[in-house]
Order: sequence, then C-alpha cells, then structure tokens
Amino acid sequence: MPDRIYNFSAGPATLPYEVLTQAAKDIVNFRDKGIGLIEMSHRSKEFIGVVDECEALLRELLAIPADYKVLFLQGGASTQFAMVPMNLLRPGQSACYLNTGTWSKKAIKEAQLFGAVDVAYSSEASNFDHVPAPADYTVPAATEYLYFVSNNTIFGTQFHTMPATEKITVCDMSSDILSRPVDVSRFGIIFAGAQKNMGPAGCTLVIIREDLLDRAPDTVPTMFRYKTHADKGSMFNTPPCFAIYTVGLVLQWLKKLGGLTAIEKMNRDKAALLYDAIDASDFYRGHARKDSRSLMNVTFNLPTPELEAKFVSEATAASLDGLKGHRSVGGCRASIYNAFPREGVEKLVEFMGEFEKKNG
Amino acid sequence: MPDRIYNFSAGPATLPYEVLTQAAKDIVNFRDKGIGLIEMSHRSKEFIGVVDECEALLRELLAIPADYKVLFLQGGASTQFAMVPMNLLRPGQSACYLNTGTWSKKAIKEAQLFGAVDVAYSSEASNFDHVPAPADYTVPAATEYLYFVSNNTIFGTQFHTMPATEKITVCDMSSDILSRPVDVSRFGIIFAGAQKNMGPAGCTLVIIREDLLDRAPDTVPTMFRYKTHADKGSMFNTPPCFAIYTVGLVLQWLKKLGGLTAIEKMNRDKAALLYDAIDASDFYRGHARKDSRSLMNVTFNLPTPELEAKFVSEATAASLDGLKGHRSVGGCRASIYNAFPREGVEKLVEFMGEFEKKNG
Repeated sequence: MPDRIYNFSAGPATLPYEVLTQAAKDIVNFRDKGIGLIEMSHRSKEFIGVVDECEALLRELLAIPADYKVLFLQGGASTQFAMVPMNLLRPGQSACYLNTGTWSKKAIKEAQLFGAVDVAYSSEASNFDHVPAPADYTVPAATEYLYFVSNNTIFGTQFHTMPATEKITVCDMSSDILSRPVDVSRFGIIFAGAQKNMGPAGCTLVIIREDLLDRAPDTVPTMFRYKTHADKGSMFNTPPCFAIYTVGLVLQWLKKLGGLTAIEKMNRDKAALLYDAIDASDFYRGHARKDSRSLMNVTFNLPTPELEAKFVSEATAASLDGLKGHRSVGGCRASIYNAFPREGVEKLVEFMGEFEKKNG
Repeated sequence: MPDRIYNFSAGPATLPYEVLTQAAKDIVNFRDKGIGLIEMSHRSKEFIGVVDECEALLRELLAIPADYKVLFLQGGASTQFAMVPMNLLRPGQSACYLNTGTWSKKAIKEAQLFGAVDVAYSSEASNFDHVPAPADYTVPAATEYLYFVSNNTIFGTQFHTMPATEKITVCDMSSDILSRPVDVSRFGIIFAGAQKNMGPAGCTLVIIREDLLDRAPDTVPTMFRYKTHADKGSMFNTPPCFAIYTVGLVLQWLKKLGGLTAIEKMNRDKAALLYDAIDASDFYRGHARKDSRSLMNVTFNLPTPELEAKFVSEATAASLDGLKGHRSVGGCRASIYNAFPREGVEKLVEFMGEFEKKNG
C-alpha cells in the first residue's frame, strides 16, 4: 500500500492529513500537558478552551448571527430526524417536508410520530435524480416549519438555490456544510453529522435560532430538548470530546485555506473536472439531473453492472478507494468533500479515460 | 510538565499509555492501509472487523450469554435514562428505582415521563453516603423493572452485593463496568458510558437481553429503540467509530492483564492503599460509609474547605491532577479506575502524609 490512498468514501470521509497528524500528537500528550486529549476531564479549562475555540471558528466561518446557539451533540443526523419534530411540533400541528432522497424519507417517518406531515415535493418517481426549484412546490400556510436536505449524499443531488419561505426553515446540511457560504439567518435550525465535511463520526452540529429553544412540550426527555444543551454550552453531560476537538482542527485548516468562499471555488473546480469527464463520454452516465448536480457526491453509471464492478475493483487496486455507489443507485459514487485533494480527482479522471479505452 | 501526570479525573479518565500510542498510529494510517482510522467508511470490512473484535472481547471478558445483544450507542448514560423507560414501560406501568446519588435521581426524573416510579430506597438524607443492603428495600410485585447504579462516581459508593430480584434488573454500570466480574445473566439491561473504565467519551455500551427488544411502544422514535440498533449490529447509522475502536484497544489491554478477576485484585489493592491512609488519620475523613466504599472513586474531606483547596492546588503542582471533589460532596475525590497505575496511588498516599505533617 502507498502511504496514503485517495479515499472517495461518502462518510466517514477523507480528512486533511495535517489534522490527522496533529490529532495523533494530542491524543498521547495534549499540548505537552502530560495528559492525553481523550483522558482530559470535559470540565477542565483546557477542554473547555477546545470547545470554545471550535465554536468561535464555526461562528466566524459560517458568519453565524449572535441570536443563534451552536450545539455539539451525539447520535448523528438520524437522531435529529426525531429531535426536530419533538422540539418544534405539538399534537395537531403540521410540518412541510421536501422529499429528495433516503435521508428526507427517514426524517418524514420520524416527524409523523409527532404531527402531520405535508410532503410538498417528491422526486422519488425519478429515483431522486433532482431537487425542486422554488416554483415546484408550495409551503402550506398552516405549516410550522419547512424541512429539506441541502445535499443528497446517496443520489448526488444538491440544492443550488435554497428554499425561501417565511416559515421556520430546517435544513439537514450533513453532507455539504462548510462547503460554500450560506446565509444562516434564513434558517431556524441547521444540523449536520460531522463525518463528511467537518471531522470524524460521533459529533452532530446543531445551529439553532434562540427563539426556538422554548417550544418543546414538557413530555420531551431532557436529553432530547435543544434547550438542555444550549443552556449548558453542550456540557449538560459528557460531550464527544475527541470528535469536537477534531472538528476544531478541521476548522483551523479551513480558515487557513481562506474560508468558505475559497473552498467553494475549489469544490466547484474539482466537481467540474469530474462532471466534464462524464459529459464528454457516452460510456459514463451521470445519475443526477444537470441542474441538481452535487459538488460533493458525484454519482455515475457505466454501461453494465459487470463493468461497474470491474471499474470499482480496478480503481481500488489503483489506490482510488470507496467508489462503489450506494445500492439505491448502483454504479459509482465519488465523494469529493472539502478535504478531498484535487490531485485525486485528476487521477480518477485519468483512470476513467483509460478504463473506457480498454472496455468501451 | 513531566511526560505524564497522574490523572485522577472522574471521567473522561486516564487510559493505558499503550492504548494512546496505538490510537495515535492508527489515526494517521490504520494498519498501514494508507487511510486513517477516522476516515474509513463504517461499512468497510476493516471497520466492521474493528467492531466485531471489540464485541467479541467484551463477550469474552464479561462472559456475556448468547441471548444478550451488545450495542455501541451514542448520547452517554444520560440518554439511557430516557431510553430505558421508553423501551420498557408503557403508560400505567411502574418501575422501581434505588436512589443512591445524582445519576439515579436524574434517571428517576426521566422515567417519570413514561410511567410511575417507586423509589424503594433513598440514601439522600445522609448525602448519599451509602447504598442499601438487600434487606433494606422491597421491590413491589407490580413493578416492571428494578433500576440501580452500581457505582456512584460523585459520592464514592458502590454496591458490593448486587440487588437480586425476579424482576428485570437494569443497571447503570458507567463507572465500574469491567472493574470486577459480574453475572450478566442476572441483568436485563446493563449500560455504561465508555469514558471511565472503557475508553474515550462518545460511546455508550448497552448489553440487553434479547427478549426485551420487542417491548417498545410504536410511538418511540427509531433511534431510541434498542431493537433498531440490535437488528443492525450498531450500524443503523454511522456509529462513533473512533470511540468504539479505542474501547477495543482498552479491552485488548485488559485481556492481556488477565481479565476481570485480575483487574479486580489490582483495584482492591489500589483502593485499600488509599482507604488505609484515610483510616489511619484523623486529618482525612472518608465520605462513604465503610460498607459502601467504592473501589473506583475515593471521596474524602479535610478539616476545612481552605485546607481542601490548598491540598488540591499543591497536589496538582506535584502532578497529582484532578483531585477536586464534586460540588455535591466538596473535598477531594481520587478516581482510580482500571487504568490508573498503582504507582500513582502510592504517590498520592505519600503526598497526603506530607501534607498532613505540614498542615495537620
């Protein structure tokens, strides 16, 4: 094996190498304090400093307004599928969901436990190959909130125009947070698992407008109320210390790169390389409609499942790892999050050309 | 600072040094695969191997019977306070709790959201300085389960005789799991946050008898049902990969040491050193009643709060870190979990002797 493969995994995903080496040092001896990062009390001033720094960097990079709380939780986006309606819906109330893939479907299922759900748009009939434009759906007047997934990891689609509504807007940004600037003030809640663009698995970021903290009915258990965590600076109980620390390192790296405007440019450039290669060939066929293509997850098919299997296997042997598509789409998926190097995309494009020549 | 301080933190707590150095290697390049541990897909055969090995070691060390599932969850023990009643109680049913400290009190509060709670015993009147003997309480005939906390981190008490009942027994073993052999077959559910005896924060172990998986009402969200995680081998969604991996390393270390019988002997020996020092002096005064003393968390007071503050501060300067007691008890607390070295306890006893000479 080479020192480092190209890792196209959809998540947990590739991280900046300097983040890994710094974490390796601090795990054994945090800032030369004679104690490992993962052994430190979460109440120690050193660890509180880690969390504070992480939050400050997030606020800076995303320009989070002062009336929003930043929470570092556990349980992944899947736990948020339940926490959002638990905190925002009361019996008899309804919410509006855009169904653009596996993760919105799962979120709809959980919301139905707590209220009525209007699915204002669904792209399921075309195997979720696109996301709707603003004119394609109507948010009902009586709805409490509009919920959508900004980037659909499995199907490789992404909202390039964010839904705009007067209602509370809730966004699962798990697979494209920090990949481009967003106007946080347009959202009520943004949440994201860390393991794609932010860090390792085990930490879920929640950004929530303060006025939404008091909506949860009294029947909601303590740990599932946003207010519990907001009131204690994510330290109501022991937080996922290592994951938060590593998110902080990734944010430092992102800031050094130039922040969200700079990374968006790099992401557009990387994705264009790959989509251009797909469009220039009849051998490769993109799954997502062009207007909905994701800059994070590029999904494509080859002429036959046999060729797809051969492609993935030979790519892996060439240190291009993790290209097998999700079973819902089949084919291939190249996840090229923030930390994925341009060089790896170039290698993949080169490999695709050679593979087509031999097998086309 | 020395290379390594003695870390008496109650959790996250000290870990074996060889675990830290191994984790540092694998974070950058997992088993020389050219990919960091925290970048690997949780569905990769390498990571599934990590989880399988971790579970197998746990089953071996704790002699977990075949009809129990082992789950690696997120959210800490605090999330279990709600998940236990959500999964075991239906409206109109009741559960029996032994109130022996902060953590049982919090668990009682959550259970009350889902059914009636009988508190069969409470040691609150004497500031939780002991746990009950079996004769001290009666489990009501109509109760669904008996809940208790095996070791009370904050107050430094521990059950040396486990409650015995025909009812389903649920135990929060967060702060003494793997510190001594236990008969798992006597329990319905055992749970524990990892960050004391098992690894870093961010992973919660649940050991559950299979027949309890089907009790949750349909109103319980997917992520809060034990069955969801049991059916998918803790891979319903992305698990806390790094924390599980590190738990696996700690289990390897524990097995090499000789397993639970060996570690219990070492824990008894370490705790005796410290309790003997307390008992030999009028200057130091143990908080826990002798019959309830914890082998994991040794709580003690000095003659005045001023002396306690001085003690903690001078101890820290001498690389004996994390000795400040929880505000509920005041004074000092020395947490000496599995991975805490005997040498560190010897140093503390020596320091206590010197401090008493100078200040007694």
